[in-house]
Order: sequence, then structure tokens, then C-alpha cells
Amino acid sequence: MTDLKQQILERVSDDLVNIEEALKSNLNPYFDLVKDVAEHIIFSGGKRLRPLLMILSSRVCNYQGDLSFQLSTIFEYLHAATLLHDDIVDEANKRRGKEVANKVWDNATAVLTGDFLLARSLTLAAKTCDPRIIEVMSEITEMMSQGEIQQLFNKGDINLSVEEYMKVIEAKTAVLIRGATRCGALLANSNEDEIERLSRYGMNVGLAFQMADDLLDYTTDSETLGKETGIDLKEGKMTLPVIYTLENAKQNGSSDVETIENIIKNPNFSDDDFKVLIEFMEKHGGISKTIDKAKEHIENAKKQLSVFKNSKDKELLFMIADYALVRKV
Amino acid sequence: MTDLKQQILERVSDDLVNIEEALKSNLNPYFDLVKDVAEHIIFSGGKRLRPLLMILSSRVCNYQGDLSFQLSTIFEYLHAATLLHDDIVDEANKRRGKEVANKVWDNATAVLTGDFLLARSLTLAAKTCDPRIIEVMSEITEMMSQGEIQQLFNKGDINLSVEEYMKVIEAKTAVLIRGATRCGALLANSNEDEIERLSRYGMNVGLAFQMADDLLDYTTDSETLGKETGIDLKEGKMTLPVIYTLENAKQNGSSDVETIENIIKNPNFSDDDFKVLIEFMEKHGGISKTIDKAKEHIENAKKQLSVFKNSKDKELLFMIADYALVRKV
Repeated sequence: MTDLKQQILERVSDDLVNIEEALKSNLNPYFDLVKDVAEHIIFSGGKRLRPLLMILSSRVCNYQGDLSFQLSTIFEYLHAATLLHDDIVDEANKRRGKEVANKVWDNATAVLTGDFLLARSLTLAAKTCDPRIIEVMSEITEMMSQGEIQQLFNKGDINLSVEEYMKVIEAKTAVLIRGATRCGALLANSNEDEIERLSRYGMNVGLAFQMADDLLDYTTDSETLGKETGIDLKEGKMTLPVIYTLENAKQNGSSDVETIENIIKNPNFSDDDFKVLIEFMEKHGGISKTIDKAKEHIENAKKQLSVFKNSKDKELLFMIADYALVRKV
Repeated sequence: MTDLKQQILERVSDDLVNIEEALKSNLNPYFDLVKDVAEHIIFSGGKRLRPLLMILSSRVCNYQGDLSFQLSTIFEYLHAATLLHDDIVDEANKRRGKEVANKVWDNATAVLTGDFLLARSLTLAAKTCDPRIIEVMSEITEMMSQGEIQQLFNKGDINLSVEEYMKVIEAKTAVLIRGATRCGALLANSNEDEIERLSRYGMNVGLAFQMADDLLDYTTDSETLGKETGIDLKEGKMTLPVIYTLENAKQNGSSDVETIENIIKNPNFSDDDFKVLIEFMEKHGGISKTIDKAKEHIENAKKQLSVFKNSKDKELLFMIADYALVRKV
């Protein structure tokens, strides 16, 4: 575990206990099987990043009420719902080292439990009676489903542009994290400037996290990752490190382009092919450029926090932004 | 086409035009593929029963505003979303005579477009800023997903009880129709009694429609039905006509029980087996008892309308309740 992760965890340990409790108590379907499937995905070692960001955002806006833990579960349930649906989309076998729900049960059960979690998020949002929070929720759900479909549609397109990649990760990942930080500010009845700043903080953190996540496929071994490495590429999913590698190699007129493209195009590339690809990614700066881009978003996120007065919570928002890049899993 | 259907259609033709227009104009995803898939399911000859019931319910409560058509699309989008997800669950090939979306495209695209339609419903509901309407929506979504999972779980259980069957059809079908009629009353800012009466009207109509739908599998040829007949049973789905048949045959100590059970248990029963089964269903009153039960719910639905003053719209609510049983498709 990295030092930074350790430091964050120590500071938020009480919050995490409260989040776990709220996640359990808000999950009470009438039908037991739904509970089993939902718990399989929800209590499988998630970091609770999204609820935590909502709670910290509400606090830097001086929220004093007792609704934040309840409300924060929305973002974990939404996240879990999309994971359940994504696992069907991705046809992956494992998530966080555990067999995916659609393999333990089946596609249908996973789809429907995802629907239930979406609905439960909505029920919780409805309880606030704040139309702005409901609006955030509907925007998140609309964007995430479209982002996933777009990603699916882009599969196998080895000429995917940086812009197309950004559009997808904004919709499928960053909008949810932005929603969490935005709702924190909304719950605190903050002013327009603070709401917008926390929204931008969340958006930028979300983009950085997704870029880092996409890097892991090329920088981590499968045991640490909890799933197969190189899986993105095997599924035809072009992510930023590969896009930058190809872009740079082409710009430099490198003769490596053909080899890189051949590996990328072959869904059954060997472990040796993958090693060659990673060497090329380092050589052509695909890895480092992705890290730089993620850093830009982290800096941009932190900049948004300047108007908030210093506090333990603001410091945590800084640390979590940095954590996007240092985390190993 | 039945006379009643013709009569209803003549009276609601203007409303149907407005509903179609609202369905088109509210469906504007940023990503074109989502539009294609959503249109495939939405514009495939649906009866618009749910939007229509919402509009008529708002009118019998004297609603004079211009939001009803917009809002009514919620219930068609929700319906379409669940059809997209159900087709994955059911592994059927056809719906309304057309190839299902998950075959034209794939499971993933169908799941995600369903999610988009759920989200779009929520966006529309959020526009009302009425927490009661949001609450109805979240209840519908929670119930439908659980009803579907329960139905899935019940598959192959030839001893399914009437109570278990009722619980499933209430959750998967009737709650949505109740939501539509309830929202009509809510939109009109009606009093508590009228809201509850229209809710009960919707619930009972929903139950009757589902019972009639389940009857069609045993009373209609596949061409008229637009999908394979006997498919419920082939999927191990026990519905009311079969449950009543078995129940009655057992109560009478009939020697037919074994033959009936053998056919039901065999997912590959022949056309001749199916004919034999239908004869037994008629002999043991499974068909007629289902019709009687549906009639009870229709009468119960109509009874709720007594407090509303007579009008063209109230008359249509009566006609639609009756239509549940006379429709052929």
C-alpha cells in the first residue's frame, strides 16, 4: 500500500465505517436474491471513493446536517449498477479478483439487480426533494449509458482520436464523480461558485482516475490488478496510453508503427507481443504522456479548491486528487 | 380488430398523435446509435396504453395544463426500457413480430439503451419538480426489477402458487400502470381520495392486462401473437391458466395431473403435446378461471371511478379496462 493511501485511510476511517453502515442499511430489497447479488458487487472491496468525495465536498461547504452519509450511498449504488451492466458488456470473468455477478448468477440477474440499484439510488435522491440533486442523478445515468455505448461502438477502431477517448471517459466515469462532488455542494446549499468549483474538481479527478485506470492495464501485473492484464486491448478498447503511442510514433515517422498496429489489431496477441508493445509504449512516450495528462487534470482539480478555507477535509480532497496517480490498484 | 379497440382508437386518435410526437421529441440522445436502438423498440407498434392512461387520468381529475403529453412519455420509455432488458432475460427472438434489439445489435447495446431510457424517464420526471412523481418513478423501477428477478427465480417451479404469481405480475406489470394513472392524478393536483382511486384503477387494470397477456399464449396462434406460442411454458414460466389447471385437476383427484405435469416439465414439448395441454386446460377450467379472475379485476378497476363525474375521458377509462380482456393482441 502506498504511503498516501495509508494516510488517506487513517484520516477517513470513521467516515468509511459510516459509509459501510449506510450502504448496508439502505439496501433492503423485498426479494432476497436481489440482496445477494447486490451485496456481491457492493461489498467486494470497493474504495468508496465516490461517497467519500461527496461527504468531503459537503464538509468543505460547511454542511452540518446528518443526511450526507445516506445520500452518499447513491453514488456507490450507481457505480455498482454500472459495474453490473458493464461486466455483461465487457464479457470479463473477474472484477476485483472475484468472479463477476453475471457468471456467479447469470446475465439476466445481473442486469436486473443493476436496475434495482439504479432505482434505489433514485429513491434516495427523491428523499432529498431537491430537484437539482434529481437532475444530477438523471444526467449521470443518461451520460454513463451513452458513454458505455459509445465505447462499445468504438471497439476495434485503432484510429480512435484523443477527443473521442476523452468524450467516452468523461461520460462513463467523470460525470459520476462530478455528480458526487456537486451533490455535496448542493446538499450544503452552497453558492453557485462553490457548486461549480466542486463540480469541476470532481470532473477533473474523474478524468485523472480513468486515465490512471487505463494505465494500469500496461503497468501492473495481473495478480495486483485482480484481473487479466492487456484485457482492454484484447477487447479492442483503445485507451490513452496506446492512442498517444501510436500518435507519437506516426508523427515521428517511426517504422515501429506497423508492428504496433499489428499487435493492437490481433485480439489473440501473445504475452511476448504484449511485452514488445509495452516497450514501444515507453519508447514513444505513450505512458509518460498519459501520466502528464492525468497530472494536468489533477492540478486543474486542485486549483478549483482555492476559494475554500483550509481544513482537514480540503486537505483530503487534495490528497485524493493526488492519489489518482499514485495508486497501484 | 375488435369493435371495442376500433371505438377506443377513434376516440383517442388525436391524443395518440400527440403522444407519438412527444415520444419523438423527448428522445434526443447525444449518440446516434442510442437513438436507433431506442427507436427500434419504441416505434414498433406499441399501443401507448400507459401514456394514454396517464393522460386520461389527469383529465378525469380536471387537469388543464399542457404538461401531460410530455410527462406521459415517461411511462412508455420505462416500458421500453424494461422490454429491452426483458428480452435479454427471456432470450426470445421476436417481439411484436420484429427481431429483438439484442439480436439486431447485441446484449450490451440493448442493456445500455435500456439504461438510457430509464435515465430519460427520470429526467422528464425531474422536470416536474414534484417529489411525489419522482417517488412513483423510483417505486416503479425498484418493483419492476425485483418482479422480473423473482419471475426468473421462479422459472421451472411447476408448483408455483397463485399468490407467488400475483406478486410477480403486480411488481413487473401492474405497478407501472398504477404509476401512470397515479401520476395523472398527481399532475392534476387531485385530492387524496382521487389519487388513491386512480392508483387502484391502474393496479387492477394492470393485473387484468397481464392475466390476459398470459392467456394469449394458450389461446392465440403464433402469427397473430407476433411471437412463438407456448413460449412461456418452454421457458419454464408458470402463468395463471396453467396454475389454475393444475390446481383444479389436483383438487379433483384427476388422473390427468401426471400427463399435464409431464408436458409442463418438458421444455421441448411437441405441438401435439401443446394441443393436449390446451384441451386439459379447457377441461379443468384453467382458461375460464383466469378469465373470471381478470374480469374481477376489471370490475374492481371500474368501481374506483364512481366518484368522478361522467365524461368522455371517464368513459374511455371504462372501455380500456374492458379492452384488457377482449383484445386479441
